[in-house]
Amino acid sequence: MKLSVLAERLGLECTHEGDREISGLNSLKDATSSEVSFLEKAAYVKDLAATNAAAVFVSKELAEHVPEGTVALITDQPYLTLAHATKAFAPAVIETAGPDAVVGEGTHISAGVYLGKGSVVGSNVTILPNTFIGDNVRIGDNTIIYANVNVYRDCEVGSNCIIHAGTVVGSDGFGFAPTRLGEFVKIYQNGNVVIEDDVELGANCAIDRAVFGTTRIKKGAKVDNLVHFGHNVELGEHSAIAGQCGFAGSTTLGRNTIMGGQCAVNGHLHVAPFNQFAGRSVVTKSIKESKKVFGGFPIMEQKSWLKLQAKLAKLLK
Amino acid sequence: MKLSVLAERLGLECTHEGDREISGLNSLKDATSSEVSFLEKAAYVKDLAATNAAAVFVSKELAEHVPEGTVALITDQPYLTLAHATKAFAPAVIETAGPDAVVGEGTHISAGVYLGKGSVVGSNVTILPNTFIGDNVRIGDNTIIYANVNVYRDCEVGSNCIIHAGTVVGSDGFGFAPTRLGEFVKIYQNGNVVIEDDVELGANCAIDRAVFGTTRIKKGAKVDNLVHFGHNVELGEHSAIAGQCGFAGSTTLGRNTIMGGQCAVNGHLHVAPFNQFAGRSVVTKSIKESKKVFGGFPIMEQKSWLKLQAKLAKLLK
Amino acid sequence: MKLSVLAERLGLECTHEGDREISGLNSLKDATSSEVSFLEKAAYVKDLAATNAAAVFVSKELAEHVPEGTVALITDQPYLTLAHATKAFAPAVIETAGPDAVVGEGTHISAGVYLGKGSVVGSNVTILPNTFIGDNVRIGDNTIIYANVNVYRDCEVGSNCIIHAGTVVGSDGFGFAPTRLGEFVKIYQNGNVVIEDDVELGANCAIDRAVFGTTRIKKGAKVDNLVHFGHNVELGEHSAIAGQCGFAGSTTLGRNTIMGGQCAVNGHLHVAPFNQFAGRSVVTKSIKESKKVFGGFPIMEQKSWLKLQAKLAKLLK
Repeated sequence: MKLSVLAERLGLECTHEGDREISGLNSLKDATSSEVSFLEKAAYVKDLAATNAAAVFVSKELAEHVPEGTVALITDQPYLTLAHATKAFAPAVIETAGPDAVVGEGTHISAGVYLGKGSVVGSNVTILPNTFIGDNVRIGDNTIIYANVNVYRDCEVGSNCIIHAGTVVGSDGFGFAPTRLGEFVKIYQNGNVVIEDDVELGANCAIDRAVFGTTRIKKGAKVDNLVHFGHNVELGEHSAIAGQCGFAGSTTLGRNTIMGGQCAVNGHLHVAPFNQFAGRSVVTKSIKESKKVFGGFPIMEQKSWLKLQAKLAKLLK
Repeated sequence: MKLSVLAERLGLECTHEGDREISGLNSLKDATSSEVSFLEKAAYVKDLAATNAAAVFVSKELAEHVPEGTVALITDQPYLTLAHATKAFAPAVIETAGPDAVVGEGTHISAGVYLGKGSVVGSNVTILPNTFIGDNVRIGDNTIIYANVNVYRDCEVGSNCIIHAGTVVGSDGFGFAPTRLGEFVKIYQNGNVVIEDDVELGANCAIDRAVFGTTRIKKGAKVDNLVHFGHNVELGEHSAIAGQCGFAGSTTLGRNTIMGGQCAVNGHLHVAPFNQFAGRSVVTKSIKESKKVFGGFPIMEQKSWLKLQAKLAKLLK
Repeated sequence: MKLSVLAERLGLECTHEGDREISGLNSLKDATSSEVSFLEKAAYVKDLAATNAAAVFVSKELAEHVPEGTVALITDQPYLTLAHATKAFAPAVIETAGPDAVVGEGTHISAGVYLGKGSVVGSNVTILPNTFIGDNVRIGDNTIIYANVNVYRDCEVGSNCIIHAGTVVGSDGFGFAPTRLGEFVKIYQNGNVVIEDDVELGANCAIDRAVFGTTRIKKGAKVDNLVHFGHNVELGEHSAIAGQCGFAGSTTLGRNTIMGGQCAVNGHLHVAPFNQFAGRSVVTKSIKESKKVFGGFPIMEQKSWLKLQAKLAKLLK
C-alpha cells in the first residue's frame, strides 16, 4: 500500500514528497524504511530520533524529533491511529484459495485435521484428530501435535516438538487503544509465534502472536499446562515453566529460566538467564543477576521471602 | 409441568389449591408467577416476602413468611430440593431433531464445524474448523469465531465479536447442593450466556452459563486468555480483563473495569464502574467508589498496598 | 523387553545372572519383580532396601543398599538414565491397527468424534462433536462428554460423569531430567488417568497422566474450570475444587476436600480429608488434621490469616 493511501484512509495529511510503498507497521527500533511506526510516549523520543521507519504517527509537539527521511504523520492520538492502521495490514482470517499444504514422508495426519493453504509439515510428524493448522504454517520433522490443538496462520513449530491437546499457538495478543470515550480499538496482531526445536508445550496453553515481529519459545524449553504467554514474549532456551504461569507482553527471559507453578511476570521486563522462581512469584522488575532463586510478590530473593514470612508469623503470637 | 407433578416427583406435599403450570425455576427476586423458587438462608426472608414465585421450597420454620398467592413447598433442605428440581427442567444435552441452522449471506463455515438445531448465524461471519455451536444459539453479523471453540446451547454471541480458539461459552456453572453425607447433587444450570456486540474473548477462556437467567459479557468488553467467569457474572461495557483472571459466581462489574493478569473476584460482589485493579488483586468486597486503582489481597487501594510492601521490606533489615 | 537389552540400550553393564523379561518402570515402592526402578536421592535409601524391583538404576556409592534379588544398574545419573529408559516403554502416540471401538446401547456419538482402537464406551453415553477419545480408553455408562474434549490413550472415565468442553484428560505429566549442560530429557509418562464414577470436570481443565501408575479423581468429586492436576495426584471422593486451582505432582488429598478458586498445592504432599481451603491458598505442607479451614501463603488456619491481615492493615496507620 502506498503511504499516501494509508494516510488518506486514516484521515492524515501526507506530503507527496515522502510517498512510497509500505509493507507494514513496526516499532521505532525495528521498523525498516518500508514500514510505518509510531511514538506513543515522550519517553521513547530517543528511539524516534534513531528510527529508520518510512513514516511515524506522532503528535504535533514531538514531530520535531522525527529524523530526516522519515515522514511525520501528525495525529492527536498516535496510539489510536496505529490501531486503525493495523487493520489495513491484517491478513485474511482464513485463506480459501492458494496451494494445498505439503506434507513430508512418514507423517501421520489424523481424521478431522485442518491444514491451511500454503502450509508445510515435515517428515515423521504426527498430528492427532481435529487439530487446526492455519495458513502458511511451518512444522519441522518428528513433531507430535495432539488433538484439538490450534496453530494460527503464519506461525512456526520446530522439529522434535510436542504440543499437547487444546493448546493455542498464535492467538491475538491483547492489544487495544482506548478512545477518549473509554472504548477500545483493536490493534491487529500482525506478527507470529515461533516455537523452536525440542520444545514441549503442555495442555490448554495459550501463546499469543506478536503485534509486530515474533513471540518466541526457544529451543528445548518445556512448558506445563494452562500457561499464558502474551504477545512478543521471548522464553529462553532450556527453560522449564510449571503450570498456570502467565507472562505479560514483551518480556524476555534468558535461557534456563526455571519457574514453579502460578507465577506471573509483568510486561516489558528482562530476566537474566539461569534464574529460578518459586511457585506463585510475581516478577515485578527486570532481573540482571543470574543463578539466584527468587520468590514473593513483589519479587525478592526466596530466602528473604522465607525470612519475611517467618517474621510475619511472629506477629500472630 | 404442573406444580403438583413437580412436587410429587420431589416427594413434597402440594395442596391442589395452588396448582398451575410451571415453566422453570428462578431466584426469589426474579421468579415470575409461573416459576418456582427457594429460600436457602434466613437472611433472604425479605426477598421471600416480596417474591412473585408460584411456589417456594422452604423449611417449616420459615414457611410463615411465604406471601399469599405463593405455595409453600415444605422441605428440610430447600437447597438440596432445588438441586433435584433443576433436573426436571434441564434441556437435552444435544437435540437430534429440529430445524437445521440458518446461516446468513457471506458467512464462511469451515470444515468440521457443528451447527446445532435451530441455531441462527448472521451475515459475514467466519467460523473456523471444528468449532462447536450448540442448539438454539444466536450469532450476530461480522463475528469471527476461531477453531475448536465451543458455544453451548441457548447462548448468544453478538455482532462484530472475536472469539479465539479453544474458548468455551456456556459450560455449566459450578453449582452443587451437599447432602448430609457430604455428597454433591448437581444443580442443573438452565440459564445461558450472552456475549454482547464488539466483545473479544481470548484463547481457552471458560464462561459458565447462569443457573437461572444470564451470564453476560457486555458490549465492547475485551478479555485476554485463560480467563474464568463463573455463573451469573456480569462484566460491564468496555472493560478490559488481562490473562488468567477468575470471577466467582454472581458478581457484577461496572463498565470500564480494567484488570491486570491473574486477579480474582469473589462471588456475589458489586464493583462500581471505572475502577482499575493491579495484577494479582483479589477483590474481597464490593466496591462503591469509582475511578480508583486497587491492588492486594485483601483488596485495598494500590497506593496503600505499595506502602505496605515498603513497610514489610523494612522488617527484613 | 529383556533387562539385558534395556541395559545395553542405555549403555549400562548388566550381568546375565539377573536377566529377565521387563514389563516397565516404576517407583521403588510400587515396582514389581518385572519392573525396573531408580534411586534418585539418598533420602530414599529405605525404599531401595525394601524394593521388589527386578533392577534399579543407582549410583555406585549407593549400590550397596540394593537388596538381594534386585540387579544394580550402575549409573552416574540415575534420574537421567530413568528418563532415557522411559522412552523404551512408551506406547505409540496413536494406534493405526487394532480392533475398532465398542459402543454401548443408547449411546450418542456426534459428528467428528474420534474413537481410538480398542476403546470401550458404555451405554447411554453422549459424546459431543470433535471430541478425541484415544486408544484403549474405557468410558462407563450414562456419562456426558462435551465437545472438543480430549481423553488420551489408556485412560478411564467412570459412569455418570460429566466432562465439559475443552478439558484434557491424560496429557503428559511435567517430568524431565536435566543433563549436566542444563538441557532437559523427557521422562515419558507411561501411566494413565482414572476418573471415577459421578465426577464432574469443568471446561478447559488439564489432568496429567501418571509417570507410572495412575492419576486419580475419585468418586463424586466436582472440579470447576481451568484446573490443573499434575501427574500422580489423587483427589479424594466428594471433593469440590473451584476454578483455576493447580495441583503439583504426586500430592494426595483426602475425601471432601473443599477448595476456593486459584489455590495451589505443592507436590508430594498429603492432605487429610474434610478440610476446606479459602481461595488463593497455597498448601505448602502436608496437613494431618481434619475439619479445619485453611488459607494464606504459606498455609495457615484461615482465622490466623485473617488476624494477620488485620495486623498488617494497622501498619498502614
